[in-house]
Amino acid sequence: MQMSSERLVLSVDAMGGDHAPGSVLEGLQQIAKEKLPLHVLLHGDDAQLSGFLKAHPDVAEICEIRHTDLAVAMDAKPGQALKARKGTSMCNMLESVKSGEARVAVSAGNTGALMAMSTFVLKRMPGIHRPALTAIWPTAKGSSVVLDVGANIEADAEQLVEFAIMGSAYAKAVTGNNNPTIGLLNIGSEELKGVESVRQAADILKAGNIGLNYAGFVEGNDISMGTTDVVVTDGYTGNIALKTAEGTAKLVGGFIRESLTSSLLSKIGALLASGSLKQLKNRIDPNKANGGVLLGVNGIVLKSHGGANADGFATAMRIAFNVGKSQFIEDVEASLSKFHSEQPVIQETIS
Amino acid sequence: MQMSSERLVLSVDAMGGDHAPGSVLEGLQQIAKEKLPLHVLLHGDDAQLSGFLKAHPDVAEICEIRHTDLAVAMDAKPGQALKARKGTSMCNMLESVKSGEARVAVSAGNTGALMAMSTFVLKRMPGIHRPALTAIWPTAKGSSVVLDVGANIEADAEQLVEFAIMGSAYAKAVTGNNNPTIGLLNIGSEELKGVESVRQAADILKAGNIGLNYAGFVEGNDISMGTTDVVVTDGYTGNIALKTAEGTAKLVGGFIRESLTSSLLSKIGALLASGSLKQLKNRIDPNKANGGVLLGVNGIVLKSHGGANADGFATAMRIAFNVGKSQFIEDVEASLSKFHSEQPVIQETIS
Repeated sequence: MQMSSERLVLSVDAMGGDHAPGSVLEGLQQIAKEKLPLHVLLHGDDAQLSGFLKAHPDVAEICEIRHTDLAVAMDAKPGQALKARKGTSMCNMLESVKSGEARVAVSAGNTGALMAMSTFVLKRMPGIHRPALTAIWPTAKGSSVVLDVGANIEADAEQLVEFAIMGSAYAKAVTGNNNPTIGLLNIGSEELKGVESVRQAADILKAGNIGLNYAGFVEGNDISMGTTDVVVTDGYTGNIALKTAEGTAKLVGGFIRESLTSSLLSKIGALLASGSLKQLKNRIDPNKANGGVLLGVNGIVLKSHGGANADGFATAMRIAFNVGKSQFIEDVEASLSKFHSEQPVIQETIS
Repeated sequence: MQMSSERLVLSVDAMGGDHAPGSVLEGLQQIAKEKLPLHVLLHGDDAQLSGFLKAHPDVAEICEIRHTDLAVAMDAKPGQALKARKGTSMCNMLESVKSGEARVAVSAGNTGALMAMSTFVLKRMPGIHRPALTAIWPTAKGSSVVLDVGANIEADAEQLVEFAIMGSAYAKAVTGNNNPTIGLLNIGSEELKGVESVRQAADILKAGNIGLNYAGFVEGNDISMGTTDVVVTDGYTGNIALKTAEGTAKLVGGFIRESLTSSLLSKIGALLASGSLKQLKNRIDPNKANGGVLLGVNGIVLKSHGGANADGFATAMRIAFNVGKSQFIEDVEASLSKFHSEQPVIQETIS
């Protein structure tokens, strides 16, 4: 239960998620086995958590329970949750980051509530107008970073550029690629197509002063192809794209199952190929790429999927660890200062 | 080569598409075998077409070549194509619909050019502000109708309602379902979420005066689940959703191939299950659900995928035939008149 100064401290909401706290504890059990240099502040109900920790000394070794029996309901509206935040496991988790005690927060709780509360408690990073929810998207080439996938409804050109800056720094942090390519999601690769804000953002990114590796417009099919390492869009479009992809992967998965059980011969075939099919299932399992991150607040907030199982929660913890020990915040600050030094400054005159 | 008055006349652009005129002629060959009561005005280069018709009397029997050697390039910008439209196979195809000689136009040509030229030549249906490109989307329950998938960049509430009206009538025409459910694509099922235009459209559809079967908001994953028979959205979001789904299906398809060739055992398994896997390939093959339709112009314009093969073109022809013989236009007119009778009328005062 001791904290080492060399260990990265993660603040975890043990009460968030459809299967909490079970999925959280079992996820932590996987993480404990990996012996990463981390320490967990576990916000939740002592009565529900301590038994597990007693039974699993390896988990107890990396965890410290911060008791509360108040949790944000999965179906609470963001405004309600914000109003009644005091003392909830989600709010306490964020307060640990705000105080500097922990570097990263991880929750599988109510997304809307988490975004609202994170922005309220941690405040926005200087120079960022809107935080963005960011997804890691499996692609033909590995994975790409896609943002915003739902923190906001709209985004103007300046906000899209800020998303590009944060997405680039995040891709560096999670993939180790030092010069990630950036694409702006649009409906045509021609310069004249698309919405005004996207075209204006392209002009700013093309100017090249910010130092990002801008690669141009990309279309919906480019996301899964992995055409660029980062895909930037507004939260409405990004959320619909993400959920459409999830729905499509599920549909095709269902078709595979039906096909492989449609005849005796195909059942035998499926049995022989079962190792490979299991590998396939892993590749399209959302739990294997779990962990959206809310970028643009003072601190790093990982959002695990509400329905994630232990595997999914462990994935989110690993991402949290990697981002936490990265130069993400410094990278964003450096790019932002280049961006804003290029922006026209509005002089305020004191009359 | 004789036209029967009982046959539905389709006007076909033989020069449009990446594999034209080959894919068009081979698609027509499939259609000819089905002995549907249709007649085709085939706009294209006599030198390229007549040899095939001579060699295939069954195709010749349903076709009539309308010669032109001018084609719209697949990479022409819509504005350029519109300017240089005169005498092109695409323009002549549309003129045949405008004159009333044919009921439906079918082209696998340049999408942007086809949309611009269709609107210019055929004009908008009375009461429709913007035509919408409409896709048939494979779902867990069969298929759904999704619009707009790219004819426009934005849509206000009234245009979304018009899309709902056209989508409902189109679903009736192609699926035979007499009371299709309608969903508005949004980022949350809560009433308070989403963009202003979508929420306003929901209010109009909920009022129920138009007589549509409105089922509420749907999210991206609902499209492939087939939650509603019709999904309504703006062209920017719809195009990105459609292409994202195509990219995801392709990605998962690629993963399946890799998995099933990764070991000897899985190769044997794949061989045994090959019948079922072929069936699966058919289910996710875009050629099997080919044929976007441009709704909202005076006439019906089917857009086959530019890369469609003969199977794909035949699918588009079948859809064209079904819509052409349906009550689509009458249904839209009936709903529109109910919609507009409910709209506040701005009184013009002559002073």
